[in-house]
Amino acid sequence: MNKIEHLGIAVKDLAASEQIFQDLLGTTPYKREEVASEGVLTSFFMIGDSKIELLQATSEDSPIAQFIDKKGEGIHHIAFDVSDIYGEISRLQKLGYTMIHKVPKAGADGKIIAFLHPKSSNRVLVELCQDVPK
Amino acid sequence: MNKIEHLGIAVKDLAASEQIFQDLLGTTPYKREEVASEGVLTSFFMIGDSKIELLQATSEDSPIAQFIDKKGEGIHHIAFDVSDIYGEISRLQKLGYTMIHKVPKAGADGKIIAFLHPKSSNRVLVELCQDVPK
Repeated sequence: MNKIEHLGIAVKDLAASEQIFQDLLGTTPYKREEVASEGVLTSFFMIGDSKIELLQATSEDSPIAQFIDKKGEGIHHIAFDVSDIYGEISRLQKLGYTMIHKVPKAGADGKIIAFLHPKSSNRVLVELCQDVPK
Repeated sequence: MNKIEHLGIAVKDLAASEQIFQDLLGTTPYKREEVASEGVLTSFFMIGDSKIELLQATSEDSPIAQFIDKKGEGIHHIAFDVSDIYGEISRLQKLGYTMIHKVPKAGADGKIIAFLHPKSSNRVLVELCQDVPK
């Protein structure tokens, strides 16, 4: 894995949280994007070579709504940039890790993504992501 | 703030978690370090320009033991690299953010550090860190 691509943070009020992270990071979000399939509205900040992704649920059955109901706002997942997501999924499965997505799917910000099940990874929700091949 | 310096992950069994993150990241930890003042044994991995810091409690009153009791294992904090930690503390306090440490203290890995109170930052525990000035 190449780097921390982004850190996903579950929030209730995207505009209020954008202000908080704008204050903290000293920079403005570079885009908002809705991911309808996940029921989330996202907002992205660059910080060094990585990103902070704020996630607000857009429906009650969104994974982010369920996360906030159970655990409250806070860090939701960590995403690692990979060069060969299919190869990484195969490598991790052979090592005995459980993928939520055995085949990558479209994510935000021009990526294909796959999540590991947190039971495999110390209760940390880990996302693999790669730029959509051109 | 310059970059994500590291992501701190609370674990129960450092050796078992080192194996998990070694598998995930495809790299070995570059050091272990005990921070007696915090009651933690840490293990560090490099990933791109950032680090993963695994944290195991060494005493029952360690903040990591209390975190795991309350929330279970998982992501504990995010640390941002700063060039002027005193200036950042002053800047954030003027914006109304609450610092746990108003004056930086010694952290692991050759850093001086200061934590923001998570009530200020969307329930995300944020650490500022800077290399100890030489």
